[in-house]
Amino acid sequence: MTTQVVCPDFWFAIPSIVLEDCSTLREKTEKIGMIARAAAIFAVAKICVYGVAGKSKDETKFLKLILEYLELPQYLRKRVYPISEDLRFAGLLPPLRIPSHLVAADESKVRVGDIRDGIVIRKDGKLFADVGLRNYVALSGDATSNQRVTVRIESVGNGLSASIIDRSSIGSYWGYSVKAYSSLRELFNSLKPAFAILTSRKGDNIQERWNTLTYRIGGAQNTLVVFGSPKHGLPEILEHERFSPPPNSVILNTIPKQAVETVRTEEAIVATLAILNLART
Amino acid sequence: MTTQVVCPDFWFAIPSIVLEDCSTLREKTEKIGMIARAAAIFAVAKICVYGVAGKSKDETKFLKLILEYLELPQYLRKRVYPISEDLRFAGLLPPLRIPSHLVAADESKVRVGDIRDGIVIRKDGKLFADVGLRNYVALSGDATSNQRVTVRIESVGNGLSASIIDRSSIGSYWGYSVKAYSSLRELFNSLKPAFAILTSRKGDNIQERWNTLTYRIGGAQNTLVVFGSPKHGLPEILEHERFSPPPNSVILNTIPKQAVETVRTEEAIVATLAILNLART
Repeated sequence: MTTQVVCPDFWFAIPSIVLEDCSTLREKTEKIGMIARAAAIFAVAKICVYGVAGKSKDETKFLKLILEYLELPQYLRKRVYPISEDLRFAGLLPPLRIPSHLVAADESKVRVGDIRDGIVIRKDGKLFADVGLRNYVALSGDATSNQRVTVRIESVGNGLSASIIDRSSIGSYWGYSVKAYSSLRELFNSLKPAFAILTSRKGDNIQERWNTLTYRIGGAQNTLVVFGSPKHGLPEILEHERFSPPPNSVILNTIPKQAVETVRTEEAIVATLAILNLART
Repeated sequence: MTTQVVCPDFWFAIPSIVLEDCSTLREKTEKIGMIARAAAIFAVAKICVYGVAGKSKDETKFLKLILEYLELPQYLRKRVYPISEDLRFAGLLPPLRIPSHLVAADESKVRVGDIRDGIVIRKDGKLFADVGLRNYVALSGDATSNQRVTVRIESVGNGLSASIIDRSSIGSYWGYSVKAYSSLRELFNSLKPAFAILTSRKGDNIQERWNTLTYRIGGAQNTLVVFGSPKHGLPEILEHERFSPPPNSVILNTIPKQAVETVRTEEAIVATLAILNLART
């Protein structure tokens, strides 16, 4: 599969209490699975999890675990994740099948220039990477044991070798990263998004902001889309945190005339990214 | 909750083999649950299930069962559906919470003019309806036992009475109906949609058709959106059925530049309806 270059970057943010409406591990896992799928479909580069002060049900660790588990190519999962109760239902989730997952499994089909994700292994003082092939590949570059890396195959045939590359140099979508922040304020201060869209039923109707929106998304290096939680909408979280979003942000209702009482966060993410995907050229 | 009048009608169609990628009853039930939620969020009036000749895994009956079960107000479910293996996981699904579900549970809060869904009961030669209150309401109008009806409360206080009304007279979204067709051809011939959008990765980029699309949706009494199945896209189904969609239809890719190999049908429905919702004024 070839994926066209997607520019500018899309990031989205979900609160650490986003699982508050789930009662079982299975439900929680499934909700995160849908969120990961939404990120993958729309080539989201970064998923941010932000804390909400004073709320219980903070699930930052679990959210990060499942999101990162799903983003990792299947061939590396056993190496990275020991069997654990938290991952009990993660294997049942629909795979993302993003470009990093769709690489050759057969070593004879690997070509110079192929990009693969791998885990660094140090053996007899030399560096190798497990990239899901029968043999480890010899690795050039600086890395530590067990580090997750993206590599470019440099030679095949008489032993595979590869060099570590920066994901941003790939030029097309490869996968997402996950990062946790203690609050929405810390997220904005640290990430400094070029443009931010906060989603709320109480926001401006996106239809009425469409033209400025496409202009602003097209002109920004990155756009952060922020979602609230099932029981605590963004306006409530903003007020609770006494945080005013910076001037380069808008509050939008992306589902005007919704016919249900509450749109679930995972539904809002798919719906919103589907719309914003059209504003990205 | 007040829901604004939504006009024109949206209908969507899914193939009877849409569950072909599910292996368990639970997975199947959950996929249908997501499809029902999508219909509810975007005030879809009709869900059509179309058969695909020669394909196994036809699940028309099961799809209709779960979709109709979810659309029925919770207070009527026990009366309509005996316990069955097919419904084993249906009770775990997130509720739709559409307007028909959000009515007063307490008889003292019922007012003249309230709209409620009910089931007809014949007792001593007289007609009543179970509308989820402590007492049955006396019913005027013609109906048969066990028929599902929508009623308007006509008097309260000294015994409740109600009259049967046509859902289309409500003037705002109330819920969806489900109808099965033997094929896509029969669906088009029988339903005669004013405008139809067939979704396919191979269709025209929706961005490039946006202006004509809003014009055509706005001018049509109803718009039918057709989806393929996980393993059989719409172009394949059309060719297999030797069916050419009528001239008042377009084939569109609603998720340009998707970064995953396959978008699941339930994801495509949320994404597509979210976009088309903005073209509906």
